[in-house]
Amino acid sequence: MQREDNRQADELRPIKITRDFQSHPAGSVLIEMGRTRVICAVSIQFNVPHWMRAQNVPGAWLTGEYSMLPSATGDRKMREATAGKPQGRTQEIQRLIGRSLRAAVDLKQLGAFTLYVDCDVIEADGGTRCASITGAAVALQLAMRKLFLEGRLKNLPEIKPVAAVSVGIVDGLPLLDLCYKEDAAADVDMNVVMNGDGKYIEVQGTAEEKPFTRAQSNSMLDLAEKGIKQLFECQKKALKI
Amino acid sequence: MQREDNRQADELRPIKITRDFQSHPAGSVLIEMGRTRVICAVSIQFNVPHWMRAQNVPGAWLTGEYSMLPSATGDRKMREATAGKPQGRTQEIQRLIGRSLRAAVDLKQLGAFTLYVDCDVIEADGGTRCASITGAAVALQLAMRKLFLEGRLKNLPEIKPVAAVSVGIVDGLPLLDLCYKEDAAADVDMNVVMNGDGKYIEVQGTAEEKPFTRAQSNSMLDLAEKGIKQLFECQKKALKI
Amino acid sequence: MQREDNRQADELRPIKITRDFQSHPAGSVLIEMGRTRVICAVSIQFNVPHWMRAQNVPGAWLTGEYSMLPSATGDRKMREATAGKPQGRTQEIQRLIGRSLRAAVDLKQLGAFTLYVDCDVIEADGGTRCASITGAAVALQLAMRKLFLEGRLKNLPEIKPVAAVSVGIVDGLPLLDLCYKEDAAADVDMNVVMNGDGKYIEVQGTAEEKPFTRAQSNSMLDLAEKGIKQLFECQKKALKI
Amino acid sequence: MQREDNRQADELRPIKITRDFQSHPAGSVLIEMGRTRVICAVSIQFNVPHWMRAQNVPGAWLTGEYSMLPSATGDRKMREATAGKPQGRTQEIQRLIGRSLRAAVDLKQLGAFTLYVDCDVIEADGGTRCASITGAAVALQLAMRKLFLEGRLKNLPEIKPVAAVSVGIVDGLPLLDLCYKEDAAADVDMNVVMNGDGKYIEVQGTAEEKPFTRAQSNSMLDLAEKGIKQLFECQKKALKI
Amino acid sequence: MQREDNRQADELRPIKITRDFQSHPAGSVLIEMGRTRVICAVSIQFNVPHWMRAQNVPGAWLTGEYSMLPSATGDRKMREATAGKPQGRTQEIQRLIGRSLRAAVDLKQLGAFTLYVDCDVIEADGGTRCASITGAAVALQLAMRKLFLEGRLKNLPEIKPVAAVSVGIVDGLPLLDLCYKEDAAADVDMNVVMNGDGKYIEVQGTAEEKPFTRAQSNSMLDLAEKGIKQLFECQKKALKI
Amino acid sequence: MQREDNRQADELRPIKITRDFQSHPAGSVLIEMGRTRVICAVSIQFNVPHWMRAQNVPGAWLTGEYSMLPSATGDRKMREATAGKPQGRTQEIQRLIGRSLRAAVDLKQLGAFTLYVDCDVIEADGGTRCASITGAAVALQLAMRKLFLEGRLKNLPEIKPVAAVSVGIVDGLPLLDLCYKEDAAADVDMNVVMNGDGKYIEVQGTAEEKPFTRAQSNSMLDLAEKGIKQLFECQKKALKI
Repeated sequence: MQREDNRQADELRPIKITRDFQSHPAGSVLIEMGRTRVICAVSIQFNVPHWMRAQNVPGAWLTGEYSMLPSATGDRKMREATAGKPQGRTQEIQRLIGRSLRAAVDLKQLGAFTLYVDCDVIEADGGTRCASITGAAVALQLAMRKLFLEGRLKNLPEIKPVAAVSVGIVDGLPLLDLCYKEDAAADVDMNVVMNGDGKYIEVQGTAEEKPFTRAQSNSMLDLAEKGIKQLFECQKKALKI
Repeated sequence: MQREDNRQADELRPIKITRDFQSHPAGSVLIEMGRTRVICAVSIQFNVPHWMRAQNVPGAWLTGEYSMLPSATGDRKMREATAGKPQGRTQEIQRLIGRSLRAAVDLKQLGAFTLYVDCDVIEADGGTRCASITGAAVALQLAMRKLFLEGRLKNLPEIKPVAAVSVGIVDGLPLLDLCYKEDAAADVDMNVVMNGDGKYIEVQGTAEEKPFTRAQSNSMLDLAEKGIKQLFECQKKALKI
Repeated sequence: MQREDNRQADELRPIKITRDFQSHPAGSVLIEMGRTRVICAVSIQFNVPHWMRAQNVPGAWLTGEYSMLPSATGDRKMREATAGKPQGRTQEIQRLIGRSLRAAVDLKQLGAFTLYVDCDVIEADGGTRCASITGAAVALQLAMRKLFLEGRLKNLPEIKPVAAVSVGIVDGLPLLDLCYKEDAAADVDMNVVMNGDGKYIEVQGTAEEKPFTRAQSNSMLDLAEKGIKQLFECQKKALKI
Repeated sequence: MQREDNRQADELRPIKITRDFQSHPAGSVLIEMGRTRVICAVSIQFNVPHWMRAQNVPGAWLTGEYSMLPSATGDRKMREATAGKPQGRTQEIQRLIGRSLRAAVDLKQLGAFTLYVDCDVIEADGGTRCASITGAAVALQLAMRKLFLEGRLKNLPEIKPVAAVSVGIVDGLPLLDLCYKEDAAADVDMNVVMNGDGKYIEVQGTAEEKPFTRAQSNSMLDLAEKGIKQLFECQKKALKI
Repeated sequence: MQREDNRQADELRPIKITRDFQSHPAGSVLIEMGRTRVICAVSIQFNVPHWMRAQNVPGAWLTGEYSMLPSATGDRKMREATAGKPQGRTQEIQRLIGRSLRAAVDLKQLGAFTLYVDCDVIEADGGTRCASITGAAVALQLAMRKLFLEGRLKNLPEIKPVAAVSVGIVDGLPLLDLCYKEDAAADVDMNVVMNGDGKYIEVQGTAEEKPFTRAQSNSMLDLAEKGIKQLFECQKKALKI
Repeated sequence: MQREDNRQADELRPIKITRDFQSHPAGSVLIEMGRTRVICAVSIQFNVPHWMRAQNVPGAWLTGEYSMLPSATGDRKMREATAGKPQGRTQEIQRLIGRSLRAAVDLKQLGAFTLYVDCDVIEADGGTRCASITGAAVALQLAMRKLFLEGRLKNLPEIKPVAAVSVGIVDGLPLLDLCYKEDAAADVDMNVVMNGDGKYIEVQGTAEEKPFTRAQSNSMLDLAEKGIKQLFECQKKALKI
């Protein structure tokens, strides 16, 4: 099978990270992976959730939120505010974003802050949760720099690299960075979140149509590792001062 | 009082309308008025709401929806899906957008379609509801053209010009197109929606701090008319084929 | 067109304000404008909302609530408690009532009170939001007197006159105080809230069917002013000691 | 203990039933029992709930709804639409009203109608659920007459008498028709719904403070029977043509 | 009519109370009445609701909760978490459980605890609310013992016996402890909650199909008393140390 | 580290599957893995969701639901019906159960049924989602047999084996089937769902505290495979006729 945009099986779509896309949040980027576009913002609130205060938990809290514009997808998607609650899929992604970003920063070294990581999908063409994580990691770094420059933090905390990519099995072949069409046709779909040491923060493999073997799992993980290394390069470039 | 960006009292902020900003909806634009940025999209569903079918109401239905990204404002705004329902302010704006756009098109001449007009604020610096209406009028025109080109409509329906602008009284002086800071300091705040004949579709004047006179109302309406004429020019330019 | 009840174009429906309609709230009236009947009550709670305490905002808070009995309208209206949330129209009216009444009293001069202004429509025949505001202004005055007599307030605060009326264009003619039938047939519908100096607190004009000109707007404002002057007389009479 | 208004232990408060209190619903009354005032309305919708159509259940459906104005009680009560759902107490009363009124009419003999029985408390001084049932039974009769006169029903269906009253044990003594103060001080609180044959439709006795004996239960039932007979007289008077 | 399981009219179904059914809550039992099975648990939280703290109400709070597994009934029951709120029936039962258990213990003599009484129906064959109360009374006693043994309570508080049973009129005959089939066919349905002195805590009689007389009420109360005495024996046996 | 119950690193807790635990659903089991106990039920509704009918999708639908009794965990868990919506964690698990069970049966070969897979946790000590899947696979098989015996299905459909187990890294060592204490202390937590061919239906690995390597992932997958083979034996035993 020829990939829609003539990509090789192990090739990412073109990536672009636009820094400081919004002016209000502490950190903000627009990340584009092919036609998938996500605004990732990190906003800081200078207190912690009620339960942390009640239990005297030290340090900061970080929470991820994710949404799609109704007009971001092929068939218009009803607003979740209209439905009255976030969908299961949304909550699953929000929890994944939160866990992934909490792996990037030692929250205990920060003050009593809440960090809101907002990922809003402007256009969806597959891989939105992975693009969200990759973009949000850059926005988090930008937010920490801003807090440090404003004197809110004595030291610039270390932000560990975190990035994510989707892989899958389509027509029996492992592919890197699935677009929507490929994702819809995939037998297996896997999302991989890694850190800068090449270790896994999260691996979620799902047999949409056909169960998969350990060998297939390993091929997908190989592709993911290759893609994530390139994503780390893009992040570094976007963060250059 | 000097205006923040050296504008005259009767001067609009720089306007930019980017056409076809998203690929999925039938019509889509990004409208920018100064730092205020709104994605306006018109999506078509090829049926009508249940109540119209039940009552055999002919023609199409058009509904407006409005939201702000949490990261669009100075203090992060909680997602309405988290709160479980749209806020009062949101519902007020959605109803205004719906009424304004329904004045632009004869829905009875269309088929059994539902037109969703989605206005999503990417960055807010005052005047977001007016920018939404002005941008959505362009997206509506683009959507009609697309339907016509796809053969879904036999004739291209006439879309009447509709645009909106905010005016106000700040420090006793009438000003056109308030930014957030001016809006927060305004004694009176007025939103005006007009059609191409210079007639009013909606006038909403609110004394935030000080009640206003008929004379002040007339000064504000004069400014609004001047501003809206320029907005019609921008819309025309954006719609040029 | 003959008006249903032989009224002149500039004539209000019969008005009646019954004082102390309920015994529990601090102030309460039943206002009747023709067949439209609304119970307006002002209840006092001796604390302020959480956000005011958190931000140390001095003075009182005033909030408006509005509802219709299911049996108040031609077709029975589903309860909003059943629907799970107030409708957009309700929220719009609640916000209007709140803004209008906040213009009647200097909340900073009161203690840390919350004033609930409840407007409950017993029977609806057009103009319910305007009747709500006109009646609530009387209930607010009664509530202040009661607080003063009970020694809760050292001085009786000044309550500025506030009243509201609907006007519209029906069959091309401007009419004062539309009943439901007229409202349903109107090309333009305008709600005007004024204070005792003849200044506007709120003007909301909506082209239901046909856009309107400045001249038409002025004719409607003239009618509104005439009607509101009479409403001020009714309020005064109801407040006589 | 002297009763607040010098009533005997077996004496009802003054009752007044005002017929045709609202003009829109098919039947409507205002019932007053002392200071307790309730608007009872019966509205007809000319179809049945989805589940009845789906299961082909013949005849009509009747459902009870109950609410209090926020200003009806001593401390202002939050609106249930604001809370997002009816409280447990409300649902309990709604179910009681529905069951009681369904005992008054043979729904299988009516067409595919839904009868909404709306009981809205304007002022609360104890016994609101019983007043609701007693008033609603009159409104139901009025609604049936109207349907018959309009030719919607071939025969005027028989409406069996139904009325309700509260009884209780206060300071060890059985009392009829408790006002709020008595209810708050009661050891036992019982609501009794009877039909015209002196049979029970519903008996709900609750030990608020002290468990009660069979003898006490019988004393309360005796009082209730006495009171309900008088309520039947009031209903008849209100229904006289 | 022969009863399904050859029971006499005044015979209970086989009862079994399994103590310490769960390990986490302070007290827990599985109660079985015929095929009806309910898990009753009492969990302790070492604080009181916000409104008690705000009003300085001394002592503990006790609240009842009730639910059915979706798979507990003949036709699968939708989860209330999916529906977004507890049904009216559920709320009615929860309030009944709370009132009944609060009659068993003097909450003012306990510390600032909240006692959650959770009744979860594993299988439903009629009488679930009564089985819940009877089982929860045992779990409450077990929980108090545990608190005392853990040194959380200086004295073991007295738990007064409380038990409940359903009775009804089926085919004109009074029956004790209705199973689902009998309940569905009953003309009258009555739930009785008693204490150890043979006094009533709650009596709720409902004419499902036919109004009932005082004599019928008395026959049902006689049956209930007989059944509840046996339930007290079962409770005692289950509580033996 | 010694495991709490002297288990080896690669040893499952004692497993027990009680068949036909409830009488109403088509299939039902109680599964126990150590102290973790889950009721798994499969209920059949003889129609499909609205969206399937609307789009003419052939075959059956299967949906998973999951809940915990409030009393199932160490600290009592608030009911989701009280909160008004399922939590994110619940939705994530429900989606996982649904996907896993849909892999066990070819829904296109069934009629227009909806299969509800309800997993209700009676007691939680780690691994509840995996126990749910393993138990539900047995309940699904039982339900299919029942449908076939009742003549609702012409052929007994093939149910492919599906089972799940949790694995993790605790104190640097890979462990099989974590109990709650181990799960709370784990650096990595992985849930594995496999079919009878040893292929993966789902793999979800999460670094709770420390990112993990490919080698660690492989050790965990080895343990999981070992455990799942034993689970298949237990399932077979439970299904023996």
